[in-house]
Amino acid sequence: MYTLYYSPGTASMVVHLALLEIGAPYELRLVDFDQDAQHGADYLKLNPRGVVPTLVIDGRPRAESAALLQMLAERHPEAKLIPPAGAPEREAWLQWTVYLSNTLMSSYRFWFYPAELGTAEHTPEVRAALQAKIAAVWDLLDAQLAAHGPYLLGRDFSGADLLLTMLMRWSRNMPRPATGWPALKRLADLVRARPSWKKLYELEGLSEW
Amino acid sequence: MYTLYYSPGTASMVVHLALLEIGAPYELRLVDFDQDAQHGADYLKLNPRGVVPTLVIDGRPRAESAALLQMLAERHPEAKLIPPAGAPEREAWLQWTVYLSNTLMSSYRFWFYPAELGTAEHTPEVRAALQAKIAAVWDLLDAQLAAHGPYLLGRDFSGADLLLTMLMRWSRNMPRPATGWPALKRLADLVRARPSWKKLYELEGLSEW
Ligand SMILES: N[C@@H](CCC(=O)N[C@@H](CS)C(=O)NCC(=O)O)C(=O)O
Ligand SMILES: N[C@@H](CCC(=O)N[C@@H](CS)C(=O)NCC(=O)O)C(=O)O
Repeated sequence: MYTLYYSPGTASMVVHLALLEIGAPYELRLVDFDQDAQHGADYLKLNPRGVVPTLVIDGRPRAESAALLQMLAERHPEAKLIPPAGAPEREAWLQWTVYLSNTLMSSYRFWFYPAELGTAEHTPEVRAALQAKIAAVWDLLDAQLAAHGPYLLGRDFSGADLLLTMLMRWSRNMPRPATGWPALKRLADLVRARPSWKKLYELEGLSEW
Repeated sequence: MYTLYYSPGTASMVVHLALLEIGAPYELRLVDFDQDAQHGADYLKLNPRGVVPTLVIDGRPRAESAALLQMLAERHPEAKLIPPAGAPEREAWLQWTVYLSNTLMSSYRFWFYPAELGTAEHTPEVRAALQAKIAAVWDLLDAQLAAHGPYLLGRDFSGADLLLTMLMRWSRNMPRPATGWPALKRLADLVRARPSWKKLYELEGLSEW
């Protein structure tokens, strides 16, 4: 049994999408950012970092969206969200999910939380540097997908594409949104056409891309 | 067959340690940072990001140290670097390695490469903020290890401890090195006493902790 602590459109999105792809029963619990509920004493017991998502798996609270994606994918091999042990595509899956985590995930964190760099608002230099860092990731991924796409693993969809599409979505109000890169746009269109994506928009009350 | 592209004491260290723990045959290739070899055309073909490590596995170049650790661990289950599928400790392993990647790994990147934040040298405010971000990670990990250690997974050593100890080592010249936290210090002492750690120091020509 799964319980997902989430906030609409945030890093919990990829875990929610994975649950929908799998079709496993789960409970949703909203962590209300307007009330700063992520820093409430009860939630900190589940997630000492004070962030979403937390996924409670058979009573054990677990964190880190990319890791949760892998946990779910391994518990439900029939959903084919991750290639099986021994397949070379599994290596690619691991490489890309870790790459997305420690480049995009962390650059966005600085982008959206300037306090973590000791300031209320970024200077134009820091904004430009973070934008360039994120754009370099889009360049690299777009080249990969143009040559070996349409998905991160090639011909077949996997959970890594859910993670990437969530991260692309977060760039939608940046000066250079990820959908400006053609092979990335193609992948996003494929993922956004999936029933799981549409269902998630309903359940989380999302509208704009 | 494995070929590791490395530079002494860098992120390639955890992959090198894993190879030594496993005892698998491998070839070492130095990527000479003094010559900027990580940005040479040949190396960029293997690793478009221009960073170490790259591990060539049966002819396929793969990147991202935390992912490479998992690939090696899964290919050599007898080395017990990762708990097997289905074990609850495997979930903890995934959570901690992803957490280390997108917190410490990325904060260090900004710490050691100020250019990625658009500057030749960090302001005191940014230095303090990055230090605080890293210290918050040591706080959280130290609390975890004090309550449930000595290792990240509890009683038993795993590959996640290699990753953590490498990342602790990088703080040795910072104002608050990780070894100032007692439970972290205990874990580092355990890992540094392993034959793989000593062998790595010889092979990579490292001296100071
Ligand atoms: N690396 C974490 C990142 C989690 C994270 O930063 N979540 C954000 C939302 S996208 C959050 O909870 N922010 C609330 C806060 O920091 O106060 C993951 O992937 O799970
Ligand atoms: N997330 C990557 C980080 C790799 C990385 O940043 N490596 C550094 C050394 S620790 C590097 O190659 N730096 C050389 C450069 O950027 O020019 C990993 O864990 O493999």
